[in-house]
Amino acid sequence: MSQSERFPPSRYGQAERHMAESLVELERRILSEEETEECDCKEGMFNGLTRRGLLAGGLALSGAAISGGRARAEAPPGAIEYPVQPDSTKEQGRIILDDGGYGSRSQFENEVRWRYPTASLDSSWSMTPLAAGHGIITPSGLHFERHHGGIPAIDPRTHALILHGMVDQPIRFTMDDLKRLPAVSRMHFIECSGNGLTEWVQPTLKTVQGTHGLTSTSEWTGVRLSTVLEMAGIQDGAAWILAEGADAAVMTRSVPIDKAMDDAILAYAQNGEALRPEQGYPLRLLLPGYEGNTHIKWLRRLEVSDKPFMTREETSKYTDLMPDGSARQFSLEMDAKSVITFPSGAMKLPRAGYYEITGLAWSGRGAISSVEVSADGGETWHEAELEGPILPMCHTRFRLPWTWTGEEAVLQSRAVDDTGYIQPTLQELVEVRGTKSVYHLNAIQSWHIAASGEVTNVHA
Amino acid sequence: MSQSERFPPSRYGQAERHMAESLVELERRILSEEETEECDCKEGMFNGLTRRGLLAGGLALSGAAISGGRARAEAPPGAIEYPVQPDSTKEQGRIILDDGGYGSRSQFENEVRWRYPTASLDSSWSMTPLAAGHGIITPSGLHFERHHGGIPAIDPRTHALILHGMVDQPIRFTMDDLKRLPAVSRMHFIECSGNGLTEWVQPTLKTVQGTHGLTSTSEWTGVRLSTVLEMAGIQDGAAWILAEGADAAVMTRSVPIDKAMDDAILAYAQNGEALRPEQGYPLRLLLPGYEGNTHIKWLRRLEVSDKPFMTREETSKYTDLMPDGSARQFSLEMDAKSVITFPSGAMKLPRAGYYEITGLAWSGRGAISSVEVSADGGETWHEAELEGPILPMCHTRFRLPWTWTGEEAVLQSRAVDDTGYIQPTLQELVEVRGTKSVYHLNAIQSWHIAASGEVTNVHA
Repeated sequence: MSQSERFPPSRYGQAERHMAESLVELERRILSEEETEECDCKEGMFNGLTRRGLLAGGLALSGAAISGGRARAEAPPGAIEYPVQPDSTKEQGRIILDDGGYGSRSQFENEVRWRYPTASLDSSWSMTPLAAGHGIITPSGLHFERHHGGIPAIDPRTHALILHGMVDQPIRFTMDDLKRLPAVSRMHFIECSGNGLTEWVQPTLKTVQGTHGLTSTSEWTGVRLSTVLEMAGIQDGAAWILAEGADAAVMTRSVPIDKAMDDAILAYAQNGEALRPEQGYPLRLLLPGYEGNTHIKWLRRLEVSDKPFMTREETSKYTDLMPDGSARQFSLEMDAKSVITFPSGAMKLPRAGYYEITGLAWSGRGAISSVEVSADGGETWHEAELEGPILPMCHTRFRLPWTWTGEEAVLQSRAVDDTGYIQPTLQELVEVRGTKSVYHLNAIQSWHIAASGEVTNVHA
Repeated sequence: MSQSERFPPSRYGQAERHMAESLVELERRILSEEETEECDCKEGMFNGLTRRGLLAGGLALSGAAISGGRARAEAPPGAIEYPVQPDSTKEQGRIILDDGGYGSRSQFENEVRWRYPTASLDSSWSMTPLAAGHGIITPSGLHFERHHGGIPAIDPRTHALILHGMVDQPIRFTMDDLKRLPAVSRMHFIECSGNGLTEWVQPTLKTVQGTHGLTSTSEWTGVRLSTVLEMAGIQDGAAWILAEGADAAVMTRSVPIDKAMDDAILAYAQNGEALRPEQGYPLRLLLPGYEGNTHIKWLRRLEVSDKPFMTREETSKYTDLMPDGSARQFSLEMDAKSVITFPSGAMKLPRAGYYEITGLAWSGRGAISSVEVSADGGETWHEAELEGPILPMCHTRFRLPWTWTGEEAVLQSRAVDDTGYIQPTLQELVEVRGTKSVYHLNAIQSWHIAASGEVTNVHA
């Protein structure tokens, strides 16, 4: 049986079939048979390729003598020029555990969070470099931040959570107490409701980190809030819970008791280790799908009541001014949203040809059921592939193969969640909400591709 | 409707029901109504609890005056003693991005990988602190390591992958080339086949980090190996592929072509960012479910052939000596396995009462279908709860509530995968494989709980 019979292309899905059709456009590094034979100097152990040629940076160098990867021969006319590939096999590597037992990233990696230029450094935010992301997990070191009074340094040995108010028995939990209770781990996004606030009227920030970088996904572990509420015994008439942080802003938000009893988590771990300080170490509230500011960090107190507490963060702040002068309050659930992260703003496509469009979609109301992509500003749509696991209130990665013709294009993505909600255009959103809302901009994002390949943030 | 009608305990599953039954055993911090009233000094804004009492470290301090959390009043007789909780709200926190835009963990966290005391630091391994883990993701900084020639520092701008041998067209891929191809992200464990090698004859290492710490799970992103093989065109008769690393050991393993075309990935990212140097930056082979040494790190070459290459790592090393003197070779798939991470070796349970037993299960052949737990050395078994997402060739977390009576106990876990394979006892495994195998010890682990609460590694 031939290999093409054993591995028919149909086994490998739309992306690969498209890939095969687009081979001409992809700038491959094909080594001709002639080049392969030229450099087969019989000094290596492997068929048709010498060790010397390999180390020098590829067969195009035609078997010329190379010294430790530093010198290189003159390439023959027409050969592809490769950078010299140093030979890492000729040098003993760094020894194990010279990092002290907790590793860090490569010296060649330098993606960082970007701080929005707020006037104050004490109350500010920094954004995840979404264009550099992969899969759905956000590295903990690149999780977006939003602080209202800086990042406290809290010793977990003295930290405690007080649960009181309309309960049969107030309880004080140390961190050790909480860690003895039944735990759950869940992958969830957290999105700041201010994500995109610069983009209501004009396309403003240049990159997807600026327009959408206030959302991140982690695997969170902790105790169900319902577990400790059951221990304390909720009294009749209880309807809201106040959550209070131990930061200098004493962040406080009111949470409906139904949410608290449903899927809320008292989280002490993130991506397999303790919460990061910027994410509320040693304890934060996790309210899957709710706007980020309600996931109170450095959590120290929960008070059960029959009414919301009307804190500053739900009266002055984090409300949405409507066109008629009224304000939406407790707009807690994040609406379905998506964004293309490649290609995205400030990139430049080197040439026409094959590209894989990819991005993220999420909804505060459940799982993503589909994402469609348009390359013509919303006139025609193509269903993207969703990558599993597709989890509720979690980033979902989508992918779609695309051949760019070299002409102008406008790329958009549109998410649909499992409640049937369809991500709106900016025009549709503004018709309902006006432009004074500040928060909860979840409109379709447009990226313009110029004939030069330059990608820019546009309203289309 | 009363709260107990709205939130009947039956909604919250076995763990919580058990929790409710075990309240007496759990050392809770219950604040009596009397104490609550005593300290209600009307100076705070919240019902039944003053700000002063809260900041001082809990209501047990009975409303005594506290200055900045540093001094504390004398506790009344019989009151629970709490450590003083400093008031982090009275001090501005650390400002945003003072970490340079890439965060690190709290100063109070100090879990590290542990190096097995090999004679050489150049060829050694370090192990993941599984007992400190949460969920299924291993933090990249704590992923286990196994190096045969140290960790090379490779510049991704000059790194390339050569694909050649029995293909129609040899191809040289730069990292940029690979990143333009269709990508996939998958959560998979990698386990070193040497995991547990000290434990064949006698229980040897004290902690689960030592007995089982050579397994870790990440979300890996990269290009399907099948994609590049289809681009190159596999010739008839091709049956194996050599994968070669760019480390000083020039690690080489042969991989069956069916595996290469099935689910193998050329991975360049881990947990949402570039691979860590210890994990093969900038490129590693990922062979879901295969023994760890085949996931060639710092991957620089793939050669297609009609037979395996019989490298050192599949002749001298990584073979399993059987009782009859023959050797198992190419024992590539990791058998189903599980281990209880809490409670585990070198811990001490403070007292009888409620605990949540938890651990990890995994299989190189598919998904975990069930995990059973025994507290009596395997006489009786109880089905644990599996936490989703339950993914193939990925760690799966299991949990089971348990009330320790205070008497001696032997805890064990037993995994079953979706092929129906049942994790064997050590005795069953040794009957088939003898004790000279070194690799592939996947037997049931036993933790002895003494009446003192001390947990030790035993063969039971």
